[in-house]
Amino acid sequence: MSQQAAELFDNFQELTPSEFFRKNKQMLGFSGKIRSLTMVFHELITNSFDASEEAGILPEIKIDLQKIDKDHYLLRHTDNGPGIPEDFIMKVYCTMFAGSKFRNIQSRGQQGLGCSGCVLLSQMTTGEPAKVISSYEEGDELKGIKLKFKMDVKKNKGLLMEKEEFTPDRTGVSVELQFKDVSYSLAEQGAFEYIRRTMVGNPHAKIIFRDPTGHKYIFKRAADVVPVLPKEVLPHPKGVTADDLIFMAKHTDKRRFKSLLTSNLSRMSNKKITEIQERTKIDLNKRPKDMKWEEAEAIVDAFNKMDFMAPPTSGLIPIGSEQIEGGMKEILKPEFIATTTRKPVAYRGGVAFIIEAGIAYGGDSGRLVGEERKSEIMRFANRVPLTFDQGSCAITEALKSIDWRRYGLRNLENTPATIFVNIISTQVPYLSTGKQSVAPEPEILHEVRQATMKVARKLQKHLRAKKAAKEEAMRSKIFEDYVPIILQEAANLAETGVPEYKEVLAKVTRRALAELLGENPDHAEKEVEEEFEEVESRIPSSEGLFEEDDEEINGNE
Amino acid sequence: MSQQAAELFDNFQELTPSEFFRKNKQMLGFSGKIRSLTMVFHELITNSFDASEEAGILPEIKIDLQKIDKDHYLLRHTDNGPGIPEDFIMKVYCTMFAGSKFRNIQSRGQQGLGCSGCVLLSQMTTGEPAKVISSYEEGDELKGIKLKFKMDVKKNKGLLMEKEEFTPDRTGVSVELQFKDVSYSLAEQGAFEYIRRTMVGNPHAKIIFRDPTGHKYIFKRAADVVPVLPKEVLPHPKGVTADDLIFMAKHTDKRRFKSLLTSNLSRMSNKKITEIQERTKIDLNKRPKDMKWEEAEAIVDAFNKMDFMAPPTSGLIPIGSEQIEGGMKEILKPEFIATTTRKPVAYRGGVAFIIEAGIAYGGDSGRLVGEERKSEIMRFANRVPLTFDQGSCAITEALKSIDWRRYGLRNLENTPATIFVNIISTQVPYLSTGKQSVAPEPEILHEVRQATMKVARKLQKHLRAKKAAKEEAMRSKIFEDYVPIILQEAANLAETGVPEYKEVLAKVTRRALAELLGENPDHAEKEVEEEFEEVESRIPSSEGLFEEDDEEINGNE
Repeated sequence: MSQQAAELFDNFQELTPSEFFRKNKQMLGFSGKIRSLTMVFHELITNSFDASEEAGILPEIKIDLQKIDKDHYLLRHTDNGPGIPEDFIMKVYCTMFAGSKFRNIQSRGQQGLGCSGCVLLSQMTTGEPAKVISSYEEGDELKGIKLKFKMDVKKNKGLLMEKEEFTPDRTGVSVELQFKDVSYSLAEQGAFEYIRRTMVGNPHAKIIFRDPTGHKYIFKRAADVVPVLPKEVLPHPKGVTADDLIFMAKHTDKRRFKSLLTSNLSRMSNKKITEIQERTKIDLNKRPKDMKWEEAEAIVDAFNKMDFMAPPTSGLIPIGSEQIEGGMKEILKPEFIATTTRKPVAYRGGVAFIIEAGIAYGGDSGRLVGEERKSEIMRFANRVPLTFDQGSCAITEALKSIDWRRYGLRNLENTPATIFVNIISTQVPYLSTGKQSVAPEPEILHEVRQATMKVARKLQKHLRAKKAAKEEAMRSKIFEDYVPIILQEAANLAETGVPEYKEVLAKVTRRALAELLGENPDHAEKEVEEEFEEVESRIPSSEGLFEEDDEEINGNE
Repeated sequence: MSQQAAELFDNFQELTPSEFFRKNKQMLGFSGKIRSLTMVFHELITNSFDASEEAGILPEIKIDLQKIDKDHYLLRHTDNGPGIPEDFIMKVYCTMFAGSKFRNIQSRGQQGLGCSGCVLLSQMTTGEPAKVISSYEEGDELKGIKLKFKMDVKKNKGLLMEKEEFTPDRTGVSVELQFKDVSYSLAEQGAFEYIRRTMVGNPHAKIIFRDPTGHKYIFKRAADVVPVLPKEVLPHPKGVTADDLIFMAKHTDKRRFKSLLTSNLSRMSNKKITEIQERTKIDLNKRPKDMKWEEAEAIVDAFNKMDFMAPPTSGLIPIGSEQIEGGMKEILKPEFIATTTRKPVAYRGGVAFIIEAGIAYGGDSGRLVGEERKSEIMRFANRVPLTFDQGSCAITEALKSIDWRRYGLRNLENTPATIFVNIISTQVPYLSTGKQSVAPEPEILHEVRQATMKVARKLQKHLRAKKAAKEEAMRSKIFEDYVPIILQEAANLAETGVPEYKEVLAKVTRRALAELLGENPDHAEKEVEEEFEEVESRIPSSEGLFEEDDEEINGNE
């Protein structure tokens, strides 16, 4: 007895993005009490940073987290950005898939789900409306607006409840949201650690955070320069697909294939257009609307056979070695630090990226486990800390593949060190929705290894120098301790003849050192040096502004 | 020099779900060539199964995969389901977030993204339109329609290109799609293995698959019964949130709180309504539209303090021990098999689920690595194979936590065994978008352990019996070999007196056995038996239809 198709489609319905994510909030990273709150911090901080920087303002954020009840919090997040014009406020906070970030630009957020996701979670767990205060310039005037609204999930838009105008004295946005079923934690994946890492990756920012106990943390700026604003760059020919070309052709106002190509892609000179014409035999004077799939494929095929200049890197603004150093010093107060910024390269043929790395040793570096400090890895993408899904991330994978013993760290796990890695790109190849791990593209793995080995080698030099200094100090100490004995010996010997002063001294010192160090220090030093030189000798010479490749040699230990 | 807010919002736009996923196809599980094709198989098979079963039809699917070029395939997928009425065809295949499956019902698909995701991938990689032939009953008539269409990504709907009516002789849907940048593979995560596992979890189905080499595989039905159709069940009071209640109140046609509760929740008798009234002091005669958040919270709070009958389990239809056994036998031809279906329990207080497990040993069980067969784990959720993200899955975690040595498997990895685990629920708590791993809820971990230990114990008995039989056979063999010697001995002895026949026999046999087995078999047997009895003695007695708990004892080995 089978049912007719029509009956089965009685219930057919279409969900709005908000309805969909209401049923699938784990897809927004909201799973677990600690992670959910960290994701909220992430989305709000990220958004404020992007807005401030885009407007050329040094970001300053105030976060106030109050505990109302068990697992129930009130969050106030205030920034000094350019503000949001009245018409866009509810769109930003209540319409999913809406945003201004869908361009080919290096920015922290990309998906139009951040702020609206936070409002959805707040509403789902507390039923409370969102309160947003926005102050912004309009012409010569400063305008201020306070809104109270809910999200209409069935319509994927805001539902205004209260509105009030006021006259502000500066620009910025303040959001007030309540959450239940979340939890504030000092754990590695908690909100506090998220802020700490954010400050390492964003030394130009200032964050004032009042925690639920009322304690106020002031994370100061380590650098007073707004990062250069990344420019929107046109996609590189080697990075586009036939589908991209068809999509461009459908939504362009250009009148010919060739003007479509030159205006939508980078590195596309008239000479290149001629070459495409020759290779594909397609009439590039045709109208974009008439572009057939086969033609798009033929053009992409030609792209892949042609030589182009590397992708423009004006769109990529790294944090910079000095700034990373400043940020890590401010937060970690380390005994030693080394940082590096690699030159831009591309993955998948046409997507440019830059890897930056740093290593801090001693001080507050590493994470405190009981009384001991162990090593920690801080992963970043476009300056945003990645706190989840580390297992599958390219950064973790690359670091694991390094033979740390080669860099004098026989037991990395138990070393008080913080390893910092940041990937900068207009298109970070995230592995999952939550944007918490980077796909292990071969070029990315290579760059992370190179950058990290570079700073690890500097740490090795420091540790070796430290050991040498310690030995030197020990020698002096021994010398002081033994001088009286030596003098005594000398005096004793003086009765039978002139003492061989040098010989006695050398003998005593050498014996004492060997005893204290449990080894022959001169010999050990020599061995390490030789190994090191062997590695260095295979490194290609360094040229230009950026670090050159410095591949690890996988010899036998 | 700061920019004004309005300028920054120049680019503000709203994406459709299709546009969003076009930019984020990895969120649909489309990442990597092999995985992408497996996901396509998954979505199409899943959809066909759900449709056929809902209509009370035994599913039969024909899949034809042709290789057109390197990484370029043509896929034809045909089912014998009830068909899709003309008006819904393009909605099913081109509108994301649209579907008939957003109910509280046990079904394989749940998100309205499956078929439209496949069309999107096809279009993105080949630019080719989709072809769908649907045959369905309308009244007493059989109607047939052939459509050719593309997806209008900007509008999130279909764009018709060709349409043709015809008169079919049976119902069903046939889809034809082309894909590039995908790859057919025999690897564990490839499309072929996906079909094989699907057949283990769905012994009532039949799949005929022609692979790209032209080889035709016929996976026969191991059971001829359409699974009982799961019923839609009302959510259990312990499983709803305040937000759920508000949502129900907003979209109900009921006139009072109390009728809203009784009609939308299970286990909600008049007596329970009175109890809620007493506990919350809320007037339950009020209109649902007037429900305040505080009231919804108070009601949910009362739910959590009240006693309710366990969630109804009529909505949960397990595969069943016998059917699993049939499916595993058909595919694995094992030497031994044990299966079990646990009784329904709930996680998070109100979501019912059932765990089923099976273990097959020998024959084609396990996966072939070189010449050897190693153990393999087949994870399923509502009969659907889970092929990715195994690391974080509750099933993997539970299996890892079992001390397999207790079950006579000192080296599980190198055992030719297939371990099958299926979770049945109206709401499987998936960890990620791709629905490839199950959240490690404590109750789920517990149930997976219990079910698996149950079948593992049966395997242990089998292996022990096998070993005993082998020893018995060896004894007979030894006996035969030694009879002539014994007779000779007897004859020799006969000259001096009557031989102690029994004594000689026993002595020779015992020595020979010990030599051959390298141990004292009687003693070893006794040890195992004692350990086993100790475990068994702590197991609670079994009652009722379903398996009782059988917690593993973590003693010292």
